Amino acid sequence: MNGTSSAALEDLLAKQEIYEVVCRYARGIDRLDMDLVRSCYHPDAIDHHTGFSGGVEEFLTWAEGALRQMSGTMHTLCNHLVELHGDVAVAETYAHTTHWTREPTKPSHNAVTGTRYIDRFEKRNGEWRIAERWATRSWIRTEQDGMQITDDPSNGPVGRRDAQDPLHAALG
Amino acid sequence: MNGTSSAALEDLLAKQEIYEVVCRYARGIDRLDMDLVRSCYHPDAIDHHTGFSGGVEEFLTWAEGALRQMSGTMHTLCNHLVELHGDVAVAETYAHTTHWTREPTKPSHNAVTGTRYIDRFEKRNGEWRIAERWATRSWIRTEQDGMQITDDPSNGPVGRRDAQDPLHAALG
Amino acid sequence: MNGTSSAALEDLLAKQEIYEVVCRYARGIDRLDMDLVRSCYHPDAIDHHTGFSGGVEEFLTWAEGALRQMSGTMHTLCNHLVELHGDVAVAETYAHTTHWTREPTKPSHNAVTGTRYIDRFEKRNGEWRIAERWATRSWIRTEQDGMQITDDPSNGPVGRRDAQDPLHAALG
Repeated sequence: MNGTSSAALEDLLAKQEIYEVVCRYARGIDRLDMDLVRSCYHPDAIDHHTGFSGGVEEFLTWAEGALRQMSGTMHTLCNHLVELHGDVAVAETYAHTTHWTREPTKPSHNAVTGTRYIDRFEKRNGEWRIAERWATRSWIRTEQDGMQITDDPSNGPVGRRDAQDPLHAALG
Repeated sequence: MNGTSSAALEDLLAKQEIYEVVCRYARGIDRLDMDLVRSCYHPDAIDHHTGFSGGVEEFLTWAEGALRQMSGTMHTLCNHLVELHGDVAVAETYAHTTHWTREPTKPSHNAVTGTRYIDRFEKRNGEWRIAERWATRSWIRTEQDGMQITDDPSNGPVGRRDAQDPLHAALG
Repeated sequence: MNGTSSAALEDLLAKQEIYEVVCRYARGIDRLDMDLVRSCYHPDAIDHHTGFSGGVEEFLTWAEGALRQMSGTMHTLCNHLVELHGDVAVAETYAHTTHWTREPTKPSHNAVTGTRYIDRFEKRNGEWRIAERWATRSWIRTEQDGMQITDDPSNGPVGRRDAQDPLHAALG
């Protein structure tokens, strides 16, 4: 393997690692596993969301409070484009984030947002994590009527936030 | 290439193969190419869907019957996270599955679901395929009014389930 | 690195390059950066869209005109499957394209489409770009009521089409 191939493989590996961090963030949020969310950030990371801006520990507290007001969420991640600059990277990830709640107390608890996660990643001690995130929102669409929660397991596998989600069975 | 790089490349290749299987599944379902769907599973695979649980051949019969009741489907795949354990892997793939029908006989024939494919993959004879799938649904949103089917080719390329889909022209 | 590994790495790199081109197209369209869009095509490329078919320069003019009639767009890219044949490749990319406009003059300016980009890529002078694209549409869903544009920066990061989009700050 020559130097060019070796560098190209390193870049591919970095991009794959960064993609997986972004996916683990969504998994942690959607399964209500805040330790998994925490593991996506450096300890001194900053997060900017609609309605929040601050350090990662404060973000986790704020996010968990908001998540517990809803029945469930699905943070769907799409276009993912990374620019690498040594041990720093900028990643843009398109997201449609769906929120549902059986008895919503505000419209955003039954809604989809159009969001782009714009992240500055840093590699420290061999590990890529988010150093600063701008969760950049363009629109929100409320779902007053058409959306039904499917959480009855008698008819097929259904998503959960606890150990009974099919993911845990498959991973276990 | 040292051993570390070689193992890292092997893992990347496995993840890419698994991703392509999941995408071929969606292509097969959406183009009504049941042989392509079949090729994504091992012959003794088990599939759990809303309304179905059983072996792959029974699944194919059931799925084709359901698909033929609709005008078209679009199985949009997003977050894709794989854990490799030798010749076994667990893949989670987020999906928004859209169904449309000109004269629907039930609400789910004009609807979008929020689904996560949770798959146990196995590599046998050098090939990664699904051994067991849990199509895990969280919600369904019916589209009574706003959705229009665009299948008139006079104004631009339109999706089809037969050999006239633009994909086949491009691949051919 | 043996020949098999080397060829496999080359294929992975080609697929990554092609994926990034498709993502840069969406970024260019959504940020109204028509030079970035242009860079995704070979100069003699052909594009087929709903309502347009022709060369890339004419496409850019047509697309920019349509985009400027709307407040914003989000071209969300999902399933991405590439078949490589030497210096030619066929890529299929699923897309949900969202359009929003504060005072829309036609329904499609506040709508989501279900589209598949079917692209013939060619590698010329070491660079993969689109040679011919079929933007293949299956449905359009108008969003009369539920969709709200979130462009007030006082509550958190919001998407923009100019240099103030958070992406540019992060990249800069």
